[in-house]
Parts: sequence; C-alpha cells; structure tokens
Amino acid sequence: MKNLTIVKIGGNIIDNEAELNKFLISFSKIKTAKILVHGGGKLATELSSKLGIETKMIEGRRITDAEALKIATMVYAGLINKSIVAKLNSNRSSAIGLCGVDVSLIPSGKRKKGKVDYGFVGDVISKKINTDFLKLLLDKNISPVIAPITGTKKGQLLNTNADTIASSLASALGKYYKVKFIYCFEKEGVLNGNKVIKDLNKKTYAQLKAKEIIKDGMIPKLDNAFDALKRGVRHVTIGNANDLNKLMNHHAGTSITN
Amino acid sequence: MKNLTIVKIGGNIIDNEAELNKFLISFSKIKTAKILVHGGGKLATELSSKLGIETKMIEGRRITDAEALKIATMVYAGLINKSIVAKLNSNRSSAIGLCGVDVSLIPSGKRKKGKVDYGFVGDVISKKINTDFLKLLLDKNISPVIAPITGTKKGQLLNTNADTIASSLASALGKYYKVKFIYCFEKEGVLNGNKVIKDLNKKTYAQLKAKEIIKDGMIPKLDNAFDALKRGVRHVTIGNANDLNKLMNHHAGTSITN
Repeated sequence: MKNLTIVKIGGNIIDNEAELNKFLISFSKIKTAKILVHGGGKLATELSSKLGIETKMIEGRRITDAEALKIATMVYAGLINKSIVAKLNSNRSSAIGLCGVDVSLIPSGKRKKGKVDYGFVGDVISKKINTDFLKLLLDKNISPVIAPITGTKKGQLLNTNADTIASSLASALGKYYKVKFIYCFEKEGVLNGNKVIKDLNKKTYAQLKAKEIIKDGMIPKLDNAFDALKRGVRHVTIGNANDLNKLMNHHAGTSITN
Repeated sequence: MKNLTIVKIGGNIIDNEAELNKFLISFSKIKTAKILVHGGGKLATELSSKLGIETKMIEGRRITDAEALKIATMVYAGLINKSIVAKLNSNRSSAIGLCGVDVSLIPSGKRKKGKVDYGFVGDVISKKINTDFLKLLLDKNISPVIAPITGTKKGQLLNTNADTIASSLASALGKYYKVKFIYCFEKEGVLNGNKVIKDLNKKTYAQLKAKEIIKDGMIPKLDNAFDALKRGVRHVTIGNANDLNKLMNHHAGTSITN
C-alpha cells in the first residue's frame, strides 16, 4: 500500500496570502501522494456584504440560500480553488482543482429540513465517493485540490462542510492507501492549558473531556478524527498550517491515536 | 483514430437557463469523445456592476484589471463551469470542470503591452497544451468542460479568449483524434443575406469577403476556423447552439472546408 497524505486547511490560512503561499510551498514538498481540501475564509462573507446580501444565521449557524450558494460556488470552487492550483503548479507540483460535482466525485444529498432549514447545504454520501477517479489522479502524481461544493444526482449544487469532505475522503481512500490525515486549524494542536498535547488517545480524550479541558468546537473535530481512525485512516494529526512539514514528521501538533 | 467533438459555446446561450439546459441535453447525446469550452456571458458584467466596479474598455476592448480578473475567475471557473458540470452529470454524462491552470492544461503568457495594455489577459501557448491529460480523461469517457481562465508558469491567473482556447485544443488534439470542431454562436451559421451558407471553402470565403457579404466579427471567427483546418482539425462547423445535434450531422449551420 502506498502512502497518501490528506490535508485540510481552513479559512484562517486562506485569508492570509503570505501564509497561504508559505503553506503551499510546504504542501508541494510532501513526497507522498497528496490531496488538499480547503474551506472558505472570509472572502465569501466579504463579497456578500459588498453585494448587500445579508448572511443569514439561525441559532448561530449559517443558512445557504440561493444567492449564498452562488457566492460560495464562485468563491470556493472558482477564485480560491484556482488560485491555489495556479500557485501549486508554479511550485512544480501537478495539481488539479475540483469540487464534488466533477466526475461525480463527492455525491451529496440536500440536508433535510429539521428544526432548522439550512438551505442549499449538502451531506456527503460517503459510500458513493468516486475513489476510482481519485486513484487514477494519485497514481499519475496529480494532487487533487478540493473545494467544498458538492451536488445531488439531479444536478443541484450544494454548499458542504470542508471538514466532513476531508474526513470522508480520508476514510474512503483508507482501503487503498495508508492515509495520514492532517487537520490544520488556527491553534498549534489540542491544548491542555497553553501546552500542546503531543499524543492523544481515546482514553485520555474521555478524561480531558470530563475535566472540561477539551471542550466546545474542539469536540466535533476530535470526534471526527477518532471516527476517521475507526474507519481505516492510519494517522490523524491536528495542528497549525504554518507547521505543515513538522506535522508530517510528528514534530508539531497533536497526534490522535486509538 | 477515434472521433473527438469539441464544442464552443458563448455567452448568449449561457445567459438563458432554459436554452442552456436544452443544449446540455443535446451535448450529452453526442456519442464520440467530447470537450465543451464555454465563454462568459453577462454574469461577470452584472456582478461587476453590482459591486460598483466599472468595466474598463479601451478602443472597444475590455481591460482585465486585478478586480476584473477575480470576477472572471469566480464566474467562469466557479459558477458557470460547475453549474454546467452538475447539469451534465445529472444527464448521465461524466463531465469534469477544468480551467487552463489545472494540471497546467493550457499554459499561457500575459499579453505584452502594445498600444493598449489589456491587463491580466492570457495568450495561449499552444505547443504546451497538456494533451496527455486530456487523452487520459477522454479515454475514460470523461468529458472536460473548460472555462476560459489560464495561467502563467509563475502562477498568475489570466483571463483568456474562449474561442482561442477551443481552436487551440482542437488543433493540439488533431494529432490524436479525428476532431470535429463545432463553433456555436448566436446566428444560424455564416449568412449570405438571410440564407445560411451550407458549405464554405477558402475560395468562396475570399470571394464573399471581397464582396463584403462576410464582414466584421465573422472574419476572425472564420480565419480561426480555416486555421484550425490547416492545423489538422478534420471538420469545422459554425452554427447555433440550439441546433447542436443537427450541427453534428451537418443538417444545420455552415460547414467549413479547405
């Protein structure tokens, strides 16, 4: 089995051009097969606000109406995706910018209306991920750069959570590759006070959660990470995008183990 | 040699959702390997105007400054490209949305400042088109849908003429496929008064040009067409996107022959 590195980056790094460029150089240096999944950043919110479109929130969660979906598609699958690809390829990589609808890569279903109608939001249908096409690219040393837009089989585009896309890809490809999943966010790793926890297993996680040392937004991220391990991903590391090469070598961030 | 159909569509069809949907169903029915190259339409201009960005023109030609480039990338490579791909794939096609920077598909150079500085506009470097990757996709029955954004080897995105992209692709792939190039625009074909010219060869073209029956914007299109034939494309047909399946069978439009 070959090695495959899947890196997820979020908005904080995308919004900072100098940091993004530095990150992309580090990403180019990864020697294994690799996939980059990116989120959105502030660009979509800024564009909406310039257009006078109000960002609709219900219970603290963003609603994707028809206008917001257009903006997400333009910004994520257009500007951010192609800017990243152009920069990677200028670093002698061979990257391709895709979203979930290309070659029906990541089929999704429109999230059902529950208490809240999130609008044009997609839930990934993990079993239907087009792993054949991803393998074809990876075997040619082509690195997919994936924007968080997916679509239904009827052709409806949907705004989709980039974390879920990344962990679904990691799990789906775990059958074919030794997958290392690197989850980048704004912190240096999972923290205990000011100190980065170097290794975190399920037992310690439960203890730290009980003591409320690990809490809030960190919990879904870690649940996602442990879930990925359960579904066949070999390594999950959480840390800062600025430390990508260190994260690769386990010299920074938090390594999640079962 | 296998057959390959390359279709270019312009803004007029993209701006009309019902016509675009009808066209995409027709495109899905083409049985040969196929590529769709699309232009922009009014969306980019509308978005610019909503954002209060003035479309800069010099001598009747559009200037692409940094802001206009961002909008072109968002609208062409994002919204239009992915909407087309999602619709095609809902018609049981297997389409992939790409622009010139993906896998360095269509390398370009920034147009040199002459009398006019067009800004971030790219001129295709035809010899460097990544035909290997296109062949890989076509051999897997995957249809590339290509947006008119390209980039330099230094990673600068550039707004690029979709007609040139389409004819450059047609010529580059002429070595490997029997290429039929279908150029769709708002008219029924090349007209002599109200009547569509069914077949047009170089000699007749010269005569009709001399009589000013063929003139203005039609001339670069036809020069492009005859050039493509010279560079190895087997068939060039010019006509209306609404007649796509008829254009395929030579039952509509103007067929260009040497």
